Amino acid sequence: MTVHKNLQINKEGRLKHFLSTEGLSRELLTEILDNAENFAGVGERAVKKVPLLRGKTIANLFFEPSTRTRTTFELAAKRLSADVLNINIESSATKKGESLLDTLQTLEAMHCDMFVVRHANSGAAHFIASLVSSGVRIVNAGDGRHAHPTQAMLDAFTVRRHKGSFSGLKIAIVGDIMHSRVARSEIHAFNTLGVKELRVIAPKTLIPAYMSALGVKVFHNIDAGLKDVDAVIMLRLQNERMQGALLPSADEFFKMYGLTEKRLENAHPDVMVLHPGPINRGVEIDSDVADGARSVILEQVSYGIAIRMAVMSMCMGGSE
Amino acid sequence: MTVHKNLQINKEGRLKHFLSTEGLSRELLTEILDNAENFAGVGERAVKKVPLLRGKTIANLFFEPSTRTRTTFELAAKRLSADVLNINIESSATKKGESLLDTLQTLEAMHCDMFVVRHANSGAAHFIASLVSSGVRIVNAGDGRHAHPTQAMLDAFTVRRHKGSFSGLKIAIVGDIMHSRVARSEIHAFNTLGVKELRVIAPKTLIPAYMSALGVKVFHNIDAGLKDVDAVIMLRLQNERMQGALLPSADEFFKMYGLTEKRLENAHPDVMVLHPGPINRGVEIDSDVADGARSVILEQVSYGIAIRMAVMSMCMGGSE
Amino acid sequence: MTVHKNLQINKEGRLKHFLSTEGLSRELLTEILDNAENFAGVGERAVKKVPLLRGKTIANLFFEPSTRTRTTFELAAKRLSADVLNINIESSATKKGESLLDTLQTLEAMHCDMFVVRHANSGAAHFIASLVSSGVRIVNAGDGRHAHPTQAMLDAFTVRRHKGSFSGLKIAIVGDIMHSRVARSEIHAFNTLGVKELRVIAPKTLIPAYMSALGVKVFHNIDAGLKDVDAVIMLRLQNERMQGALLPSADEFFKMYGLTEKRLENAHPDVMVLHPGPINRGVEIDSDVADGARSVILEQVSYGIAIRMAVMSMCMGGSE
Repeated sequence: MTVHKNLQINKEGRLKHFLSTEGLSRELLTEILDNAENFAGVGERAVKKVPLLRGKTIANLFFEPSTRTRTTFELAAKRLSADVLNINIESSATKKGESLLDTLQTLEAMHCDMFVVRHANSGAAHFIASLVSSGVRIVNAGDGRHAHPTQAMLDAFTVRRHKGSFSGLKIAIVGDIMHSRVARSEIHAFNTLGVKELRVIAPKTLIPAYMSALGVKVFHNIDAGLKDVDAVIMLRLQNERMQGALLPSADEFFKMYGLTEKRLENAHPDVMVLHPGPINRGVEIDSDVADGARSVILEQVSYGIAIRMAVMSMCMGGSE
Repeated sequence: MTVHKNLQINKEGRLKHFLSTEGLSRELLTEILDNAENFAGVGERAVKKVPLLRGKTIANLFFEPSTRTRTTFELAAKRLSADVLNINIESSATKKGESLLDTLQTLEAMHCDMFVVRHANSGAAHFIASLVSSGVRIVNAGDGRHAHPTQAMLDAFTVRRHKGSFSGLKIAIVGDIMHSRVARSEIHAFNTLGVKELRVIAPKTLIPAYMSALGVKVFHNIDAGLKDVDAVIMLRLQNERMQGALLPSADEFFKMYGLTEKRLENAHPDVMVLHPGPINRGVEIDSDVADGARSVILEQVSYGIAIRMAVMSMCMGGSE
Repeated sequence: MTVHKNLQINKEGRLKHFLSTEGLSRELLTEILDNAENFAGVGERAVKKVPLLRGKTIANLFFEPSTRTRTTFELAAKRLSADVLNINIESSATKKGESLLDTLQTLEAMHCDMFVVRHANSGAAHFIASLVSSGVRIVNAGDGRHAHPTQAMLDAFTVRRHKGSFSGLKIAIVGDIMHSRVARSEIHAFNTLGVKELRVIAPKTLIPAYMSALGVKVFHNIDAGLKDVDAVIMLRLQNERMQGALLPSADEFFKMYGLTEKRLENAHPDVMVLHPGPINRGVEIDSDVADGARSVILEQVSYGIAIRMAVMSMCMGGSE
């Protein structure tokens, strides 16, 4: 944890890389949310652009493809007036046998200011942050099962916008906690931001052992777990998982853990429903809920750009 | 037709989406041509840029690949100073089982201002225009066999530049009328703009039944059809068609319908030759004609960018 | 050679296309290096942008994929404030049977100002330069085994930065000279710039017959070849070559020609080590050397952008 903290924060205590919500203080997470408030209005303006990162070069290094996430980072960078390079790693020099370090150093030598990194291996963004020289900033866009910190922060932002503060809230995360980098980052973020009670709801096979050590309440029954919650965050069920022994079938999962209007009656009357998208209608969430009045799923997408603008500009301003 | 009109036009009668040349008034089509006149000069300037759409986000949604058409829309958007997102739909979330509506709503939530849509299904652009919220504009870049309205308007623009007006003109469209979205859009555009006589020339198997209802003269013999025409628009012969029963072979087609200098002698001495490109030399058009003095094929490409700039800026200015 | 000169130079003797280092005068090559000095600082600035090519359209036409080279040209163009189109030639209209000439004329008609061309065939950039109209500029980003002139100029720039001038220098190029467009362009550049002695070091099977005609000293023994050199340029060994009869194996090659610290003891004490990248560690170069104090490999990458900015702006300013 100290290692993470050192990598993410510079000597003045300001954000340098954004790799994980773990190891960052409540003050810093709150500063990210406050900055995102300023950027949330940019998307509504006639001219959706601010000149903060004009003349900076930001490279999207996606070792794992993701059109949706790459697009939000590209838009965030362009609205900050940065130049964006989309680098398809699979077709790049690494194929010719070049090492990752050589690829990174080559991009650094081109005076790229920031790498947005998506990788199938847990720890990849931290590893890259430990390799690059002091002038380059790393933002983690998802690494293996480890972390997806901008997703967690946009969820926190969406919750704060509706509820005002975190201190009185009960929040439940539902689904495949075991394999979810989103869940891990959310747990660290909401714990640090001081929610009253954080719950996870999933079958036993999909909950990792260390949950209770994080102060999270574990539920295997969704009706019990949703009781009085102010926000419920549904995770996307990965189809791959359902073919293994961990889960019987999509139908079965929906029957036991799918979010329906009926089940939401158990929650607080003003409960919010979040989902990182893309949603599997009828698998983890019913269409009535996804499209209903409690759903803030599309707001999450909008706020995701504001959060990314905030994180990118903070990392760039945090140069020593 | 009322449905199309409603979708394309806002309450003040201004262009909102550009989906089809069908259902738009002569005044509106003329306004597009007049605006394109202003943009035609931008490509010749030292600085090929105007700040009209600065800070706007335009997403190219190409469900059907087309480098040429996408490039012209991308250039038009960039010369209007907009930010452009190229979204490869096949590699995007729709693959993960996300519905089209969810994909569109996600892009809307990112505050995209305009979608340029290309799709293999007829009606796709209208369908998408009916789904999006009031802040988003749709431009049809070709949908199935239905419409390709910017191609039709750039053809009309090219004709007007050379001939001054439409009222005295005889224009012939030659080739696979049946399967051509270009031909459909041209017929509606030239009819509305008031050409004196519109002709289609093709084998019986490639002419749809409704032609005469549109006031179009049908010819199966190219020499008769070209008699005295002021402009001839060649369609690209799709190779797929020639493998079916509709046509014998490329050689055979060229012999019967290919445009040669010899055949052009039948036409008006100042006849113009148009083609949407890419051309099949020696299939629908002889190289002598394609590269000859009567060909305006490359002018069409240039004007295509002016037309797209006009349509994009009109749709964006037409917000309610 | 006269043909090349005519194509590259306009009537006033200024650079028009940049196709090859062959046939350009020492004055012109020196002007490129001097201009690159001005641009070398841009990458270090807070705002890495100059407005020289604002409103110009530059199309990257890569018929042969190369993420690394395309990225440096894209960055150079963006830092000159140009609009950049990346055109994937394999998925473009050429697949539909369109001829190369038609593709080029279509891009010209879109008012593209410059094509950056990469092609597997020797002579492709010259051929394209001979086809385009007078308003379009061509920069060769590598054609077959023929030329890679921006790579040669960035090597010359790196050498001049460290050594001040060329007149007293001994420079050796090591590796597969036979198949290397980089080596060919370097030999012409360094000869024209007036190095004291230019050497090539390779097995007999990898040295073309015409070497001695170019005034280059040929060595088959690396220790003899490196004696007293001021700079050594390692070439990347293409894996394809090693499967043929020309070379026994990567291990064998490293044993006979791989650059090690031990071997460098033979060279001048201030010897510089260059490599165009991506490097094959342990094949043509030892990691100790690649990462050592004499290596300027990453500087080459930085200077590559400055050279490309210089060449692009000179070609654009050289319009008649």
